[in-house]
Amino acid sequence: MLKVTIWNEFLHEKTDERAKALYPEGIHEHLAKVLQAPDLEIRTAYLDQDEDHGLGGDVLDSTDVLLWWGHMAHNKVKDEVAAKVRKRVREGMGFVPMHSAHMSKAFVGLMGTACTLQWREIGEKARIWCVNPGHPIAQGVPLTFPLESEEMYGEVFHIPAPDELLFITWWQGGNVFRGGCTFRRGLGKIFYFHPGHETCPSFHNENVLKILSNAIRWAAPAEPRDFRAGDWVEPLEEFRPEKLR
Amino acid sequence: MLKVTIWNEFLHEKTDERAKALYPEGIHEHLAKVLQAPDLEIRTAYLDQDEDHGLGGDVLDSTDVLLWWGHMAHNKVKDEVAAKVRKRVREGMGFVPMHSAHMSKAFVGLMGTACTLQWREIGEKARIWCVNPGHPIAQGVPLTFPLESEEMYGEVFHIPAPDELLFITWWQGGNVFRGGCTFRRGLGKIFYFHPGHETCPSFHNENVLKILSNAIRWAAPAEPRDFRAGDWVEPLEEFRPEKLR
Amino acid sequence: MLKVTIWNEFLHEKTDERAKALYPEGIHEHLAKVLQAPDLEIRTAYLDQDEDHGLGGDVLDSTDVLLWWGHMAHNKVKDEVAAKVRKRVREGMGFVPMHSAHMSKAFVGLMGTACTLQWREIGEKARIWCVNPGHPIAQGVPLTFPLESEEMYGEVFHIPAPDELLFITWWQGGNVFRGGCTFRRGLGKIFYFHPGHETCPSFHNENVLKILSNAIRWAAPAEPRDFRAGDWVEPLEEFRPEKLR
Amino acid sequence: MLKVTIWNEFLHEKTDERAKALYPEGIHEHLAKVLQAPDLEIRTAYLDQDEDHGLGGDVLDSTDVLLWWGHMAHNKVKDEVAAKVRKRVREGMGFVPMHSAHMSKAFVGLMGTACTLQWREIGEKARIWCVNPGHPIAQGVPLTFPLESEEMYGEVFHIPAPDELLFITWWQGGNVFRGGCTFRRGLGKIFYFHPGHETCPSFHNENVLKILSNAIRWAAPAEPRDFRAGDWVEPLEEFRPEKLR
Repeated sequence: MLKVTIWNEFLHEKTDERAKALYPEGIHEHLAKVLQAPDLEIRTAYLDQDEDHGLGGDVLDSTDVLLWWGHMAHNKVKDEVAAKVRKRVREGMGFVPMHSAHMSKAFVGLMGTACTLQWREIGEKARIWCVNPGHPIAQGVPLTFPLESEEMYGEVFHIPAPDELLFITWWQGGNVFRGGCTFRRGLGKIFYFHPGHETCPSFHNENVLKILSNAIRWAAPAEPRDFRAGDWVEPLEEFRPEKLR
Repeated sequence: MLKVTIWNEFLHEKTDERAKALYPEGIHEHLAKVLQAPDLEIRTAYLDQDEDHGLGGDVLDSTDVLLWWGHMAHNKVKDEVAAKVRKRVREGMGFVPMHSAHMSKAFVGLMGTACTLQWREIGEKARIWCVNPGHPIAQGVPLTFPLESEEMYGEVFHIPAPDELLFITWWQGGNVFRGGCTFRRGLGKIFYFHPGHETCPSFHNENVLKILSNAIRWAAPAEPRDFRAGDWVEPLEEFRPEKLR
Repeated sequence: MLKVTIWNEFLHEKTDERAKALYPEGIHEHLAKVLQAPDLEIRTAYLDQDEDHGLGGDVLDSTDVLLWWGHMAHNKVKDEVAAKVRKRVREGMGFVPMHSAHMSKAFVGLMGTACTLQWREIGEKARIWCVNPGHPIAQGVPLTFPLESEEMYGEVFHIPAPDELLFITWWQGGNVFRGGCTFRRGLGKIFYFHPGHETCPSFHNENVLKILSNAIRWAAPAEPRDFRAGDWVEPLEEFRPEKLR
Repeated sequence: MLKVTIWNEFLHEKTDERAKALYPEGIHEHLAKVLQAPDLEIRTAYLDQDEDHGLGGDVLDSTDVLLWWGHMAHNKVKDEVAAKVRKRVREGMGFVPMHSAHMSKAFVGLMGTACTLQWREIGEKARIWCVNPGHPIAQGVPLTFPLESEEMYGEVFHIPAPDELLFITWWQGGNVFRGGCTFRRGLGKIFYFHPGHETCPSFHNENVLKILSNAIRWAAPAEPRDFRAGDWVEPLEEFRPEKLR
């Protein structure tokens, strides 16, 4: 049983009529419903849930894979909570930042770069192209599929070279975007995926959902490891330098 | 002084009026002229030049960087010549396959994959986007620039994951392409770049030429190395296993 | 049910007493026995089995993951059989070349490089270190473990930069080796792993076997894809360039 | 003229007799002297030089490549100074963290990982092996060379997968280390290299110095770019979506 936590800022859906219409209970509750499966135990959390944004206590420690949606209030996420997310990723927790979570404190801190990009919000069409069709995250998804309306996110996307580039998005207005990328940081697997503007129906798109669903399984944690990081270590017994002299 | 050889199939320019108009002396002679510079010594060669396609004798051995344009006659290139190109790349010669040279024997053999792609020839517009703006090959070139008319080459491009992805091309008709990629094979550096259809003016485009010009310098050979490849080697003197017993 | 085929040259075990003692029925039969599991259907094949080296008919077409051991008779493997292996990898078949299979026709052709290395056969000690502990192939294996006696394979290993470097081997005599590497070629996943000299007990080592066991599951094929590779494609309907003029 | 700044903690050399004997004026002054060349303008700075650690004013803004040595006082480096270093790297400044600078605030922040490793200080022997012999940083250096005495730094090294792995170090006591790695972050190039313990003569080793010398030229900044990062952008004129409807 994989323990999944879906975190959402949950601000737009309260005030923006279009967002409210698409995701009346919030993106987090919507995703929890459409992603449910027998092998997943899904919880949700959101910014104003409590003083730890719903991620206090043992929530993060007991999370195998964390999905994150944030946009207008990245700075309201407490530094301690963002640091805990990063620590958990390094320990092996899977992390799936979606859409504007490219600017979340957790993602930016794990990348070490600006993570900025070019953007445009005119409801234009997009086409997502798979460039790594053998990858587990791409299974069951056509090599290309359209998004009828999304916020344009375009290059230059200031990320480190991804460990694997899975999807490139074509935009009607003339841009391209490395919109589906994996990164490993410590023991944790990260998959960034760009669709999901709050006023666009991308989280109702079956291919987007299939990709997120695949990503959750792919990002499942490796076994815990004790690295003795930073500790002094003995040379291996039989190769002690004094024996070589 | 960097020794550059520009190889061209040189068939289209003899029979296709549009190609002839754009490149009356052939793509190879055109490039030799527009890429000339004080630090370069440029030669040309072509398929029907002689029985070794102009690459016999010590031509390849004395080439630092080889540019290659081929399209309709990949199979007419002798296996021995293609094998010699691959050997020289592994020894350190730079290699810049252009446009449909993605299907040349030399490139396919160095990649180990099908190297196929999707294509369409309707003279549509393209936009090239840089996704690695700090790379030497991207210097002096805008982060994006248009091609007024090119043959569409699109994903899925069946190459190994490039060592570095430098450019992604946007196509008017709805496709994207990893059209500027680097690969290292042995000591040699490879840069594949897609523009250059014989009936399109891309080799008159200053940004395309700047990129090729940068690529030549970037691909300049490393120092020769004697690898003793495949040879039995002695253990390093002071760590001979008998001393450990 | 994953269909696994274990291919072995099966020559050393007939003539070398030490090899015979370690693997009396051949490395292939030994591995088939020790790797057996409820989710695997394991077959074996070997060089002199028949004129197709036991890989004719639909054997390769019905293989999900192919393990390969070869050493002294790479050149006796028919070109057509090696080509068929490479084709199947590109179509998605997993491929696990072991030990001196780094020089097999199939592996070399998929890499496009010399694949040579330095070597020494004095039965020295080795230590395998994991450098990607979150990877599925590394699960259940200590971060480092010893091999009491192996043939030294050392740098410089003339491969393309691996997609993922998982293990680095330390050698008593003073060398290092990128001995556990993944590559993707087409739809297929490849894992090269160096232990397994015919006179060394590495295939009796539980950690080596755990790694091979993990690799089989990791290399399981992706879904088949029809790429229409090399075909002309229509522009996407709504973005036909004539609509833009 | 490349503007190089060599920064050193400069604490050990004041109190440790062995360090003082090896580097009487400090590691920074030693390196400035031995790395001097006609194309370089070298400055030095150190922790206690002033309240900005010698990096205030326009020092960082006018630095093309920054070398960094730190060990026992990473935490005494002001957050603002470390943040300025990271910003300058993203803008294109080259960065060469040496030895224990793997734990410097600047490097850790650019990596986003723990950057911890295993270590041992017993003056054992090491051998550095080149695994990317065509790389500019490896030119003029043997494929392998010994260090008579160094502090052991070993795997698991908790870094993101390097963009390029250049050197792997073998240790007498049984460890290995990815000790020479490149990373790109924003426009900046980073080369981490492990030799240089304060009580070891590595900065007197001609191969170590040649590698640092090569790294300085390799890390030279790309041209400055205005990314309009985070800005809204207009769709390209001719592809405005309203024209497609």
